[in-house]
Amino acid sequence: MSLGEFELIRRFFTRPTRRADVQLGVGDDCALLRPSPGKCVAMTVDTLVEGIHFLAGTDPGRLGHKCLAVNLSDQAAMGAAPAWVSLAITLPQSDEAWLSAFAKGFLDLADQYGVDLVGGDTTRGPLSITVQALGFVSERDALHRSGAKVGDGIYLTGDLGLAGLGLEILQGRTSIVAKEAVDRLEMPQPRVQAGQALAGFANACIDVSDGLSADLGHLLEASGVGATLDWTALPLPSAIRRYIAQGGDEWMPLRAGDDYELCFTVSTDREDELALRMEAFGCSCVRIGHIDRQGGLRLRKDRRVFPISASGFQHFPPCG
Amino acid sequence: MSLGEFELIRRFFTRPTRRADVQLGVGDDCALLRPSPGKCVAMTVDTLVEGIHFLAGTDPGRLGHKCLAVNLSDQAAMGAAPAWVSLAITLPQSDEAWLSAFAKGFLDLADQYGVDLVGGDTTRGPLSITVQALGFVSERDALHRSGAKVGDGIYLTGDLGLAGLGLEILQGRTSIVAKEAVDRLEMPQPRVQAGQALAGFANACIDVSDGLSADLGHLLEASGVGATLDWTALPLPSAIRRYIAQGGDEWMPLRAGDDYELCFTVSTDREDELALRMEAFGCSCVRIGHIDRQGGLRLRKDRRVFPISASGFQHFPPCG
Repeated sequence: MSLGEFELIRRFFTRPTRRADVQLGVGDDCALLRPSPGKCVAMTVDTLVEGIHFLAGTDPGRLGHKCLAVNLSDQAAMGAAPAWVSLAITLPQSDEAWLSAFAKGFLDLADQYGVDLVGGDTTRGPLSITVQALGFVSERDALHRSGAKVGDGIYLTGDLGLAGLGLEILQGRTSIVAKEAVDRLEMPQPRVQAGQALAGFANACIDVSDGLSADLGHLLEASGVGATLDWTALPLPSAIRRYIAQGGDEWMPLRAGDDYELCFTVSTDREDELALRMEAFGCSCVRIGHIDRQGGLRLRKDRRVFPISASGFQHFPPCG
Repeated sequence: MSLGEFELIRRFFTRPTRRADVQLGVGDDCALLRPSPGKCVAMTVDTLVEGIHFLAGTDPGRLGHKCLAVNLSDQAAMGAAPAWVSLAITLPQSDEAWLSAFAKGFLDLADQYGVDLVGGDTTRGPLSITVQALGFVSERDALHRSGAKVGDGIYLTGDLGLAGLGLEILQGRTSIVAKEAVDRLEMPQPRVQAGQALAGFANACIDVSDGLSADLGHLLEASGVGATLDWTALPLPSAIRRYIAQGGDEWMPLRAGDDYELCFTVSTDREDELALRMEAFGCSCVRIGHIDRQGGLRLRKDRRVFPISASGFQHFPPCG
């Protein structure tokens, strides 16, 4: 069955507005939104392309979840409360079942965080999805990448490496069986509450989308500092430990992206207060290293210190 | 030459912030923006896909212009003053010359309207561009599609059909020579000032992106009214008259999209005031018909009245 473009948009993506700050949602030339007085609007955009950011044949419900999750994760990394999103979707043909599942995955996550879908565009072409998210944060509390201070502890929410392992599994490059790894890759949970709990508290923050070494590298560069990580402190789940024990790449958890945890820095004398803030909603959080004056990123492992390249996953790798 | 993704973004798209209301631009997890107190944020998003919305091999500078212009046109149709834009660009490979030209076309138009590029994403894949624009308009003055009243005059800025003729020319389907037609298709000028001059004045407004019959059809449907257009009143440029005189499709100007003029309705007793408002910045504007109680769209031509299908260009045509 084929549906006209406008009917298709109406059918799957138009719902009554849920937020009081949406004056006009989908269906006119623009959405009309009432920003929170005294707050900044935090804006982010991310595109997921089939074959680059997700494998062909990915479950559409999981894809709908993920393409919103990656944007909410950017809002979290800024300490912002997400409010409104737009969805621009390009797909090869109008597929009702696919769109229905995609919309459910997308809107279920939106509902979980009280976010309204307020605009979009549907076009024909190779499958790709661009989501833009808008949220609120006060200028004073916003979490920049550039605020890390020498001596700060470096902290990470949740754990590290499962999404990377999930990709290894889906591509048949490991014999490890770990459903939680594939789930992490396809259904990451953005750290929205953690980000807001860190707003006005952490000195610097970034989300782990391209890989810890790459993303922490951005934070260090923006802050004009360096860092040393402690291997034994990295929160590696049992599936990752099995993967390494069976000969898998031990650097994978540092290089692989898509975990969507928050990596942030806090003065170590505020560690007790940090623990209280994170426990309030059950988000685990560990110190994985500290900020140094010396530039670059290092890893302490087996009583040695290794320099780590900050270059993670790049879509256009630099040539040598 | 190949550049790393981050270097590539920095090189072509990062400039010092020009607007005082941009607290933080490109380069962190989110941009941070200060909305105008008391105004709504108007938000719109549009995707252009190679082979669907523009021909393969389109000049990158013109493409950069156009993908911003179509979003500024949506802002204009809402009566909003555009302020901030994001750019998500997917391209097959990192091509420095292409990106440099694209960025120039995009940023030159942004400068023309005092708009800041504040965020974006660069990904690898089949060429497509998604732009999101944010602007300001007061809730009271915003131009909805749904406000047309029976008896209103229907007005159109500029002229009609050149973009459609431009496509005919580029596809070799006509022998007409008309540089202005190709220019209109590839370098449309969004009616940003006209939209703001109409804010709080016109009863309803839409921009002509999918074709006059389709877009006016949306306005009529949203307003719960119908309309009759007057063929002799349509502002057809000489190239269009030549095209029709030489056997071209006379309905093309009504069906073809991409002109990016504003179509709006105003009570006819305010026509003098309308003329003054539009003359103030040299925007031509003519009455092309009127709003009827009877639903549907009609055209008066050669003393007959023809019903016009409101279905214009759709990416997924409904099957019969």
